[in-house]
Order: sequence, then C-alpha cells, then structure tokens
Amino acid sequence: MKRSLGAKPLGLPAPVWVVGSYSPDGSPAIMVVSWGGICCSTPPCVAISIDKTRFSHANIIEHRAFTVNVPSRRHLIATDYLGLVSGATVDKFSATGLTAVKSDTVQAPFVKEFPLVFECRLLQSIDIGSHTQFIGQIMDVKADEAVLDDRGNPVAGKVSPLISSAGDRSYYALGEYLEQAYVPGMALMAEIAAKNGTNEPEPGALAPGEAAPTGTGRRADLQRAGRKSHHEKEMTYAT
Amino acid sequence: MKRSLGAKPLGLPAPVWVVGSYSPDGSPAIMVVSWGGICCSTPPCVAISIDKTRFSHANIIEHRAFTVNVPSRRHLIATDYLGLVSGATVDKFSATGLTAVKSDTVQAPFVKEFPLVFECRLLQSIDIGSHTQFIGQIMDVKADEAVLDDRGNPVAGKVSPLISSAGDRSYYALGEYLEQAYVPGMALMAEIAAKNGTNEPEPGALAPGEAAPTGTGRRADLQRAGRKSHHEKEMTYAT
Repeated sequence: MKRSLGAKPLGLPAPVWVVGSYSPDGSPAIMVVSWGGICCSTPPCVAISIDKTRFSHANIIEHRAFTVNVPSRRHLIATDYLGLVSGATVDKFSATGLTAVKSDTVQAPFVKEFPLVFECRLLQSIDIGSHTQFIGQIMDVKADEAVLDDRGNPVAGKVSPLISSAGDRSYYALGEYLEQAYVPGMALMAEIAAKNGTNEPEPGALAPGEAAPTGTGRRADLQRAGRKSHHEKEMTYAT
Repeated sequence: MKRSLGAKPLGLPAPVWVVGSYSPDGSPAIMVVSWGGICCSTPPCVAISIDKTRFSHANIIEHRAFTVNVPSRRHLIATDYLGLVSGATVDKFSATGLTAVKSDTVQAPFVKEFPLVFECRLLQSIDIGSHTQFIGQIMDVKADEAVLDDRGNPVAGKVSPLISSAGDRSYYALGEYLEQAYVPGMALMAEIAAKNGTNEPEPGALAPGEAAPTGTGRRADLQRAGRKSHHEKEMTYAT
C-alpha cells in the first residue's frame, strides 16, 4: 500500500545542470537548474524550465540561445553557490573562478571547467505556470577529451555528474556502472522464449519496441546485446 | 580545449522511468522513457517525451493521463526488458510479473512494485520532431513507506533510482549522498564575504537566487544551511 504525498514536483533522479546565457549588456550569466531533461531525438533537443522571475529568463528569450553545462562532482561547491545568488547582483564567474567561453554555434557562453556542454538554439518557449520551459535544439555537444571513450562518446562514470533529489533536498553522486542497455532485457527475453518453447527471437526481428532507455541506436544495441545475453538472472521484487 | 561531438541528445544524467497508460481496450500499458524531467513547480508538472510511433503515445492522448513510475535498481532486468518489446504484441505485465494498479486521481495505471509514482493529468502536448513531449500536471505522488524519511519525503538513497547514460548506452546506480542543498554554497558565500571584509549575509536577506537545485523550499533550506555552514572547503578545478 502506497502513501499519498500530494501534488509535488519530486521527480527523481533530477539533473544538476548549469545554464549559460548572455545578459542584455553582453556579460555571461549562469544559473543552476534541476528541472530539465532531453526531450527529442530528431532534432536532438533538451528542455530546461526556469522561474519567470530569474535573471537568466529574459536573457534566453533575448538571444534565443542557451547552453546546458554538466558539472562534475568536484564542482559541487561552486554549483551549489550558483543557486544562492543572482546574476543581477553578483558576478558568479568571478566569485567561483569559473570561466565563460563563447559558444561556436549559438549566442551563449559555456563553462570551460565543466566536462560536458550542450549548445542550444531556442526552439520553443512553453508557458506552464511558475516556470517557462525552454526547448533548445542541441546544435553541438562539446566534451573534455578525458570523459570520452575510444569511440568518442561521453562516459557517465568519467563525467561524474551530480544528481539532485528534491524529496530530501540533497545532492548525490553518480553510482557504479550496472549494465549495458538491452543486455539484461535480452537475457530475460531468451528466458521467456525458452519457457514458452519458442525460439529465442532474433534481435533484428523484434517487434517495434518502446522508447529506448538510452534514446537512440537501439538496433545496434540489440545486436551487441544479443551476442552476450545468454546468461540468466533471477527476477524478484520486494514490494 | 573541448572536442566537438556534433548535434546529439546526450543529456546526462537521464532518468529511467516507466510510463503507465491505458490502451483503447482498457488494458494497462507500460513503456520505458529516459527523455523527461520535472518542468514546473507551480503547478507541479513533469514532462516525458515519446516517439510518435510508440504504442503508449495514442493511449496518453486518448485518456489525457499517464503515470511516471520510478523503478529501483532491483528492477533493472524487467525495466530493460520493457524497452525491448511493444505493448502492441506482448503483455508486459504478465511477462515481467509486475502489477498494474488503477490510479486514484487519473485514468492511468501505476506499477505496484516500483517505490515512487507520479499520477499525471495531460496538460500540454508539444510536437517537437520524432518525439511528442507530454507535459503532465502531477495530481498526486505515491510512495512506499520504506522510501520515506520521518517527514514523509522520499529519500533518493532509499528509492535507489536507475540512471541512464546515452553516451555509453548504459545504466548506472545512484551513488552516495554528498551534501544537503545550500550547505556547501553557504559556506562559500561566507568565505567570499570574509575575503571582501563584509559581514556574512543573513540567509533570510539573500538576493533572489536562481532556480533552486532541488526546485522548491529554498528559504527553509537556506535557514537550515545557514546554521551549519561555517566550515571551509577548498575549491579547485581540474579542467
């Protein structure tokens, strides 16, 4: 039996992102957001929500651009500080020692010290209530070499992003690597097929699935997973 | 110097959420999404994005409702499997042993075994491209007693949500608790004030800040943080 907690924005896990924009006078501004997430694959888009009273809100509308910067765990102190002061009264770059760099693709600054950056062109502004949701088309992703794997993809364990929890108003670290997408699911499929006396389905012949947990490249994942999914795991739930 | 990775939806960290809806025939449907996040505080809203070809897409439009269910780490196998098959051809509840429960507040089922659930009324549908973003007003949050603290708030460490990384197409666990929101930032504020020879600002007298990392209740957080922020930490960045 679940307890009813009422209508609250307790989404979990939530990111800890730093949004970069230019002020009307051209100076760089940054703020912390936890209300956001990727919202489309084609075109690639990210959504962030900002309280209408915030300093950065007008900046994004003015320049129709913003960046999403992913701080690492080591940037916790500065990132937390960014949520306590307003760019209207404090030069947050100077206070924290962070560095603003002009983006290549959009009229917004990114944070040099943060390992992963999304440069976004404002696509839509959605008035929801206290917050405006800005949908940004990702024009480029930029990353430090140190967080990339040998195929040039950012590895979560190397980025080491912060995670926010509204329920207990706390920051958490990213934990350990668990599984490659589709490997455990393929193993379960094989188990179900065996129980039903049917052949294990070929990955290429699968029914169209629901949204991939990692969003894109499902077929390649399935093919990789299919090659190494022949182990069984017990599935039990505590309720 | 950052490497340019091109325009890709590599947002990090991303949630691993299971969305519940009712099919036209009234049977419960579930799918995995990683494109989503909280998008407003007042009213409390969560956004999820779903590929237009998916089975659940029409369900949500039909019933103007959905649930967001947060699986724990122990539900990894079943959750991954949900991303491999379609509700058009497979009864995912029967296959995984998960249980659909009718929501109190909206026309959508939630997953009994998952510790944290958001019941949502469809507020807006945003056509972005490959995906439609559904903005749902959170009508109620339901949680297992086991994941609540003594004030009735869900604790991230107890929920133990999965985290998705699109860059390395992998699942990660939630890591360790790091800090209470605003505690490290308040300490840095005090340090900056001391350097500048000004008095440490009173939490209640702070300039309006940017969006709180945990979204709501900033003043209470500040007051709590102000009482225990008088330690100093060194801030260094590797770039």
